[in-house]
Amino acid sequence: MGANSESPVTVLGLGPMGSALAAAFTGNGHPTTVWNRTARKADPLVAKGAVRADTPAEAVVASPLVIVCVIDYDAAHAILDPLTAELRGRTLVNLTADSPDRAREMAEWAAQHGIDYLDGSIMTPTVTIGRPEAVFLYSGPEETYERHRPTLASLGGTATRVGAEPGRAAAFDVALLDTFWTAMSGIAHAFALARAESIPATELAPFAQGIVDLAGQIATELAADADAGRYSGEDSTLASNAAGMEHIIHAAHARGIDAGVLEAAKGTADRAIAAGHGEDGFARMVDAFSVANA
Amino acid sequence: MGANSESPVTVLGLGPMGSALAAAFTGNGHPTTVWNRTARKADPLVAKGAVRADTPAEAVVASPLVIVCVIDYDAAHAILDPLTAELRGRTLVNLTADSPDRAREMAEWAAQHGIDYLDGSIMTPTVTIGRPEAVFLYSGPEETYERHRPTLASLGGTATRVGAEPGRAAAFDVALLDTFWTAMSGIAHAFALARAESIPATELAPFAQGIVDLAGQIATELAADADAGRYSGEDSTLASNAAGMEHIIHAAHARGIDAGVLEAAKGTADRAIAAGHGEDGFARMVDAFSVANA
Repeated sequence: MGANSESPVTVLGLGPMGSALAAAFTGNGHPTTVWNRTARKADPLVAKGAVRADTPAEAVVASPLVIVCVIDYDAAHAILDPLTAELRGRTLVNLTADSPDRAREMAEWAAQHGIDYLDGSIMTPTVTIGRPEAVFLYSGPEETYERHRPTLASLGGTATRVGAEPGRAAAFDVALLDTFWTAMSGIAHAFALARAESIPATELAPFAQGIVDLAGQIATELAADADAGRYSGEDSTLASNAAGMEHIIHAAHARGIDAGVLEAAKGTADRAIAAGHGEDGFARMVDAFSVANA
Repeated sequence: MGANSESPVTVLGLGPMGSALAAAFTGNGHPTTVWNRTARKADPLVAKGAVRADTPAEAVVASPLVIVCVIDYDAAHAILDPLTAELRGRTLVNLTADSPDRAREMAEWAAQHGIDYLDGSIMTPTVTIGRPEAVFLYSGPEETYERHRPTLASLGGTATRVGAEPGRAAAFDVALLDTFWTAMSGIAHAFALARAESIPATELAPFAQGIVDLAGQIATELAADADAGRYSGEDSTLASNAAGMEHIIHAAHARGIDAGVLEAAKGTADRAIAAGHGEDGFARMVDAFSVANA
């Protein structure tokens, strides 16, 4: 809560997320300089006390800490590449979402130009910024992170440095969005199945939330098994899991509903079963997914 | 908690789940009669005070309430079909998991033979039985349910009667297991992606749990939109969702990891986008799933 609220910060890029970040900094008393390609996007922030820079160079030199949050790394490079002189000796925190490889490449670029660099991923929606629900992941040098941690804390929620390797925050991001979109697809598909049985989605939703919470709890146990290479099917076997999936696929088809998502999951389970792992537990799925479909 | 703990109950089928149910009844003081095809499965329950019946007929006549929990409805019919005379005037609660259609068919069979019938689904693992985490769904006549509710409460957790239509509990079951297995696949797949980036599953798991909880929370809003036919893409559009999925698919392929599950989800999104719904919100996925892939 503004432990370092006099520390100036610059935000480049004022889409919905960049604007939310800038608002959290100004709201916590940081002198905040903002820049956006379309200048009028800064208006609401200027009304809250932020300073609008006319050029990205002017914005960069205003603060020791520069946050960039744009559509992708190409857009980030387009803004930052001409500014290596201005950025030298400052810290660049890149909250733009992209792949681990591009994060590594940008960390290298920053190092070549004497720019301290942190790569970050924002794991929660725009509305959470500045609030306890926000989740941020950072990767990069510990010293750089610790130096700016009090300022970054103004963004709210929970921040975790997941390692020195610059691609790590992006790698977490990709894996977690994988879980998110797959789970959301499972929820939407269940609503389609329920609708075919004249059950309103709103009637199913509280139970869907319960079952998703259950999956989240089981994740901890599954992770321990996967890391340790423990494949005990004592609680339930992959063969019985696949049979359960087949039931659902059958019920969907009987109602004329697409079942491609679960068919793909069952296809992976079936390959593991065909390879002799039917009596293993669900942890075997982690290995099975690790091999691309030939 | 044993509001009706003198009410006798019979449990047919002593697999892990049937045994857990019987143990919860005896533990709450109900005179409990048990039967299983392989008699020795009753030993631990007899040690806890249950009475072993030598035949299913003997078990049925011991109690006004008969619970059956076996592998599928074929197994249930094999036990119950010869016992219509003994079952007449009693209540049969079928906690065997099967399809809504088979539940409806069994309700009809029960009605023809003067048997009160409730169909039930158990939404939580065996270990939860008798504990606050257990979740039971029932469908069938309100009067029948209310009459046995105090006895069924001995099974613990939360019980909900989801309607009179006998197939409803099974329909909820199928839809919720759909969500469960899809979410579990998303978690296992994320662990595979993380592993390819040298991130242990145990390090990802707490964040995976957070993101799955987030999906569960969003489910409520998605359900309201889906029921109301509200497709506003104001917060995020299906086109941007699909682009996000494509990022993950690309990252998986770059690491030689199967991405079939998310490819299937994106395939459904792509069909909706091709049909002109790219600027709609994720609620459009419920409709898109409702149409089987031609």
